[in-house]
Amino acid sequence: MIHPSAVVSPKAKLGKNVSVGPFTIIHDAVEIGDDTSIDSHCEIGYPTPLAAGRPLVIGEESLIRSHSVFYQGSVFGERLVTGHRVTVRENTKAGKNLQIGTISDIQGHCEIGDYVRFHSNVHIGQHSKIGNYVWIFPYVVLTNDPHPPSSVMMGVTVEDYVAIATMSVLLPGVVIKEGALVGAHSSVSRDVEANTVVAGSPAKFICETRKVKLKDGSNASAYPWRRHFHRGYPTEIVESWKKEAI
Amino acid sequence: MIHPSAVVSPKAKLGKNVSVGPFTIIHDAVEIGDDTSIDSHCEIGYPTPLAAGRPLVIGEESLIRSHSVFYQGSVFGERLVTGHRVTVRENTKAGKNLQIGTISDIQGHCEIGDYVRFHSNVHIGQHSKIGNYVWIFPYVVLTNDPHPPSSVMMGVTVEDYVAIATMSVLLPGVVIKEGALVGAHSSVSRDVEANTVVAGSPAKFICETRKVKLKDGSNASAYPWRRHFHRGYPTEIVESWKKEAI
Amino acid sequence: MIHPSAVVSPKAKLGKNVSVGPFTIIHDAVEIGDDTSIDSHCEIGYPTPLAAGRPLVIGEESLIRSHSVFYQGSVFGERLVTGHRVTVRENTKAGKNLQIGTISDIQGHCEIGDYVRFHSNVHIGQHSKIGNYVWIFPYVVLTNDPHPPSSVMMGVTVEDYVAIATMSVLLPGVVIKEGALVGAHSSVSRDVEANTVVAGSPAKFICETRKVKLKDGSNASAYPWRRHFHRGYPTEIVESWKKEAI
Repeated sequence: MIHPSAVVSPKAKLGKNVSVGPFTIIHDAVEIGDDTSIDSHCEIGYPTPLAAGRPLVIGEESLIRSHSVFYQGSVFGERLVTGHRVTVRENTKAGKNLQIGTISDIQGHCEIGDYVRFHSNVHIGQHSKIGNYVWIFPYVVLTNDPHPPSSVMMGVTVEDYVAIATMSVLLPGVVIKEGALVGAHSSVSRDVEANTVVAGSPAKFICETRKVKLKDGSNASAYPWRRHFHRGYPTEIVESWKKEAI
Repeated sequence: MIHPSAVVSPKAKLGKNVSVGPFTIIHDAVEIGDDTSIDSHCEIGYPTPLAAGRPLVIGEESLIRSHSVFYQGSVFGERLVTGHRVTVRENTKAGKNLQIGTISDIQGHCEIGDYVRFHSNVHIGQHSKIGNYVWIFPYVVLTNDPHPPSSVMMGVTVEDYVAIATMSVLLPGVVIKEGALVGAHSSVSRDVEANTVVAGSPAKFICETRKVKLKDGSNASAYPWRRHFHRGYPTEIVESWKKEAI
Repeated sequence: MIHPSAVVSPKAKLGKNVSVGPFTIIHDAVEIGDDTSIDSHCEIGYPTPLAAGRPLVIGEESLIRSHSVFYQGSVFGERLVTGHRVTVRENTKAGKNLQIGTISDIQGHCEIGDYVRFHSNVHIGQHSKIGNYVWIFPYVVLTNDPHPPSSVMMGVTVEDYVAIATMSVLLPGVVIKEGALVGAHSSVSRDVEANTVVAGSPAKFICETRKVKLKDGSNASAYPWRRHFHRGYPTEIVESWKKEAI
């Protein structure tokens, strides 16, 4: 299961049935759960003094695709799945079933809930706080410095079920409240109320999310999206969503 | 021609005079045309059940630069040239002489014509349809979901000779008609008429493309660009352009 | 110090105490200064006829992180530090202590001063001229073609101490004068005066930079940033800044 070309530290702790692809490097401070696959050309547990000796922890049944780089000092729950060329810095803590798309970059010191999905080329600045069931689409950036460069860090907060559409910027310290939708190519400088749509640069209130109609001929509301979109979520979660009075 | 460190499946079909660089992986379901070079650190023919067993097909005289990842199930005509770290998912069909810039990501299920040029860091969403002689510049995203996340897919259509400038987003289902120009940092929410310039967020009509003057001292019109820009196109095509009454 | 899996040309000139990580390729036309580290999976000195035989020169005490690609024909001063997956094309000349963030792409033919910091995923178009102590934040693009595609090249000029915030585009030929700040998600189509803030799409004058207050409770001005932000700069430079009457 370990390709003969891989460079795996004898100090790394690999669970049962872990596979490591060709040309992948596993450094010392690494703990990988059972049944996890690390594809080719990765660098896992990149050493940094900023992690103060803490290891990288990857949960069970995860899949890390090729050319990805994970620093030591971050912790991921079970069933992490990544695209290619993902970068994750130190001291981030994420829940289970996180998906990180190709080229996405998590800068470290972040808190991420369960069942979060980052699409391709997403940039999560340091000290971001992200809830559960959040969707972040390509080329979105979560910032943190209100007057760059400086040492002031005002991380962004993204609550449960929020969707941030393509190429939007969340400015330092904003809070995107539960179930909100940020339209594509927006620049969000103020907090966004729950279950509302904002868009534009600077982003302004457009409507309540329930006013957005599904373009599938049903004329149903497109939000909350968990009423109609279930792909990839486990049955017990989908069943609980169906019982909600939303 | 095959570097000894490369990992090449005996099931892969490599044409004559194909070279494979160091630390590159060629999976089973791959067919590569004659005289093609695959540089170092690539992963070619990444297996996916979504390709239903179809191979990756790369045409003759192609060049794939380092750290690129191609999934099985897509087909490319002759003389494909890529930058570094390109990603191409399954079930895309592209014509000849396609150029894909560094870090660009083609998400799969796309149709792409001949002589198309994607610059660096372009993101082509699933179900995009792109004509011939199209130019797409850095950090442009073609989207497809009108109310993310959902299962509704409304791919973008980009017709022949269109140019999409840097960091623009094409919203789901829009049609950019022949010869149009989308200005930089625009968000395109409506169809764009042929041979017109649109710009802004949301993008609005600016002028006809022929009103844009070349900044080379000639005072000639900058569009149609094929009147003055010929770099890299074969002689017979340039000659045919010169005969057009445009 | 040279990992046995690395592929290092005997023609490359490596200084004393240079280390080369696993699966890295060093081509012929390369000169690397003393005490420099090249991490894993890199391709250094990628050959191109556009460099007219000139080598890639990397100064002393530099660190190039994994999966980076440098073409032959560019020159970097001492203490270059890169993130992962950086791309640098030919014929760029940069001063000392340059930092280039993960996935950033320098397209070649650029001039870059001392102590410049590119954050992640920055795209520096050909013929850009960048001064000293400049900051460029994630997803910023410096363009050069006023009517793409064409052969007209109008590179951008960024003067000393300028900061360009996230996801902004600098349009061809603009000059961003000393100490200016470009707000996030802006599109800059005109020259920006020294020590002013511009923002928006198209970017407009907002205020003088000295009007921006530090959000650290001090009520001090956030600009010039060198009054309060010193992380990573050498002591002699910080001392000289402290003596300035700014």
